[in-house]
Amino acid sequence: MKDKIKRNVIVGQSGGPTAAINSSLAGVYRTAIDRGYNRVFGMLHGVQGLLEGRYIDLSEHIKTGLDQELLKRTPSAYLGSCRYKLPGINEDKAVYEKIFEILDDLQVDCFIYIGGNDSMDTIKKLSDYAIVTGSEIRFVGCPKTIDNDLALTDHTPGYGSAAKYIGTSVKEVIRDGWSLETAKGQILVMEIMGRNAGWLTAAAALARGTDNPGPDLIYLPEVPFDMNAFLEKVGALLKQKNNIMVAVSEGIHDDKGTFICEYAAADKAVDAFGHKQMGGTATYLCSVCEETFGCKTRAIELSTLQRCAAHLASQTDVDEAFASGAKAVEAALSGRTALMATLNRASQDPYRCEIGLADVHYISNVERLVPREWITEDGSDVTEDFVRYARPLIQGESWPVMENGLPKHLVLE
Amino acid sequence: MKDKIKRNVIVGQSGGPTAAINSSLAGVYRTAIDRGYNRVFGMLHGVQGLLEGRYIDLSEHIKTGLDQELLKRTPSAYLGSCRYKLPGINEDKAVYEKIFEILDDLQVDCFIYIGGNDSMDTIKKLSDYAIVTGSEIRFVGCPKTIDNDLALTDHTPGYGSAAKYIGTSVKEVIRDGWSLETAKGQILVMEIMGRNAGWLTAAAALARGTDNPGPDLIYLPEVPFDMNAFLEKVGALLKQKNNIMVAVSEGIHDDKGTFICEYAAADKAVDAFGHKQMGGTATYLCSVCEETFGCKTRAIELSTLQRCAAHLASQTDVDEAFASGAKAVEAALSGRTALMATLNRASQDPYRCEIGLADVHYISNVERLVPREWITEDGSDVTEDFVRYARPLIQGESWPVMENGLPKHLVLE
Repeated sequence: MKDKIKRNVIVGQSGGPTAAINSSLAGVYRTAIDRGYNRVFGMLHGVQGLLEGRYIDLSEHIKTGLDQELLKRTPSAYLGSCRYKLPGINEDKAVYEKIFEILDDLQVDCFIYIGGNDSMDTIKKLSDYAIVTGSEIRFVGCPKTIDNDLALTDHTPGYGSAAKYIGTSVKEVIRDGWSLETAKGQILVMEIMGRNAGWLTAAAALARGTDNPGPDLIYLPEVPFDMNAFLEKVGALLKQKNNIMVAVSEGIHDDKGTFICEYAAADKAVDAFGHKQMGGTATYLCSVCEETFGCKTRAIELSTLQRCAAHLASQTDVDEAFASGAKAVEAALSGRTALMATLNRASQDPYRCEIGLADVHYISNVERLVPREWITEDGSDVTEDFVRYARPLIQGESWPVMENGLPKHLVLE
Repeated sequence: MKDKIKRNVIVGQSGGPTAAINSSLAGVYRTAIDRGYNRVFGMLHGVQGLLEGRYIDLSEHIKTGLDQELLKRTPSAYLGSCRYKLPGINEDKAVYEKIFEILDDLQVDCFIYIGGNDSMDTIKKLSDYAIVTGSEIRFVGCPKTIDNDLALTDHTPGYGSAAKYIGTSVKEVIRDGWSLETAKGQILVMEIMGRNAGWLTAAAALARGTDNPGPDLIYLPEVPFDMNAFLEKVGALLKQKNNIMVAVSEGIHDDKGTFICEYAAADKAVDAFGHKQMGGTATYLCSVCEETFGCKTRAIELSTLQRCAAHLASQTDVDEAFASGAKAVEAALSGRTALMATLNRASQDPYRCEIGLADVHYISNVERLVPREWITEDGSDVTEDFVRYARPLIQGESWPVMENGLPKHLVLE
């Protein structure tokens, strides 16, 4: 058995990027080198690129400790990402044969994929195929998603940094709103990412503290959105205060399942996984409020800013991302496969996180939503339980390396 | 003369807030106290609030050195702002009589107003009235605007921090765009504030460096926007690269003077100064590109995020804002009136800024635009001269005071 170990690693990044995904990559690279792996290959644009024979030798690109630190602070997928959906084994065996041929050519025995739900589906399928065909290549996933919607992990790398950016931006725009008084009041609606899971939008509640009351209303996709109830709440708030701040998930929908943004734009494009493209929810809610109350409104869509703001990353998040990359390599090294590294909350106060492993079969294609009991009964806010859960994840600052007045990033030459 | 000095100061904030406007306020307060003024009053919501008798004694609110440091790092107008347009003296003398009555009651002999173009109009009118009526109250303006469009000053406090945030965000979203490859390419259009002056949008060029090529196209309102020329450029770029980044001012317009966003939304609201409300330019350009090229697009509107991002403020900007507040007080103390503190570039390399004073009559209602020679001939980019001008203004980081994972702000109880 020992003789058969080829001792090369390949690592890829997949799905929507985050501010911490490259810290996981750094963790994979550092650990693989430290544990004596021969070479660490990086797929360019994930499995899709690999199938086209596109990969690099990471040691030719991460040469110094400074490179590694820059990589940890560089947003977006350093290796490039993809949204490639691996077909079922029975649908297209040739794809699998090709991937394994490439991996064998590269003498790889450890395949790490950093990604979300769809990426864990890739790990599951490839590890299943390896078992069926007797390949000794180990497949381990490293969690990554700002959406925080992966099963069997307390939270996901990438979420903490996005939550920190969202909390900060909410605090800042609320302050901005206070500056000007308007006759009929002013409503600010911030649209935050999240199709089905409201974790990111819930992070708006983190803005609450002694120096800021935070959002007045928070709507997650976990609870059907009722336009009349919303307008009633806004109307009541307008009688009490001049500035109202509402945080909404892009994916809020009514009890018929129709996305609120669909009322604004009837037909929207569909991505490779059949997910409907979101956007325009805040603008639509603003126009309804303007019409109803005749007040000033402003829609702010955080768009991709919220997933690439490495300049305000959470140190806790960046450290955990690195550790989960390390854990994935260790798991493969010990001969295990079909796993994903998980973040387990070992202690709440003081917060302590242990990196574990879970069977990827129970993770892929499962979406972990915000528990109903962490959302207020009328669905217009989150509870203190959510804040207790999320607060530790945004602690510490991974300040960027600054050069010429701006954050410096590691670039793939 | 000496006997008549009443030795109280009043300070107000006006117009759109910035990340550095409170540092100017801190400079006014600190200097007034240090120079032996008795009390420092703060108008709540500028002259509009003052007319309603709304003001505070700042010493009751800024009690410690930490308070002062927090104030410097708190975005938006701490005292509240207004967009109140003072009528002409011959239009409504009663307003002037009321203001001077309040100021006399408060034994104020120094009136500092932190604001932009319209605020300097207020300083001009009040100082004119003081001279006509023989009042000894001195009126001095302290510049403030992210728009950087004030005359007789090299730049304005607030601009450097906004430019730093814009440069950083452009770098980050360009990186984000690289992660995914798309069959027909992807166009990202970022909409940046600026009705008539393109200084903020030009700051997108600061993203260029060894680790980032920066935006492919930059359009300022100083040069009429030609849709056909734009589409031609984008079409050519799509043949060369997968990801295209375009930075546009909200105020770009065609050669007939019609704002591009007006083609998207026919009628827009008008603010108190008769300025047309902007927005929707990026979304409109994206829809035109999608229709023309069938490629993926994304519109990002930086909205108020760009003017309140105190978490990424420029230390140079924050320091200069403080110093200009100090200078305004010193000017009044030496008996001068009808002035605005100015930032004069004494040296370019190494950068050194001296705080001067200029006659407010030559500043109010004058808009300083980006010089035509700092924009490329075809109007689709800025030149290196602009970058040399702007780069020193974003140097240094005024990192926030962090508490519980988020920036802490000073709040007016």
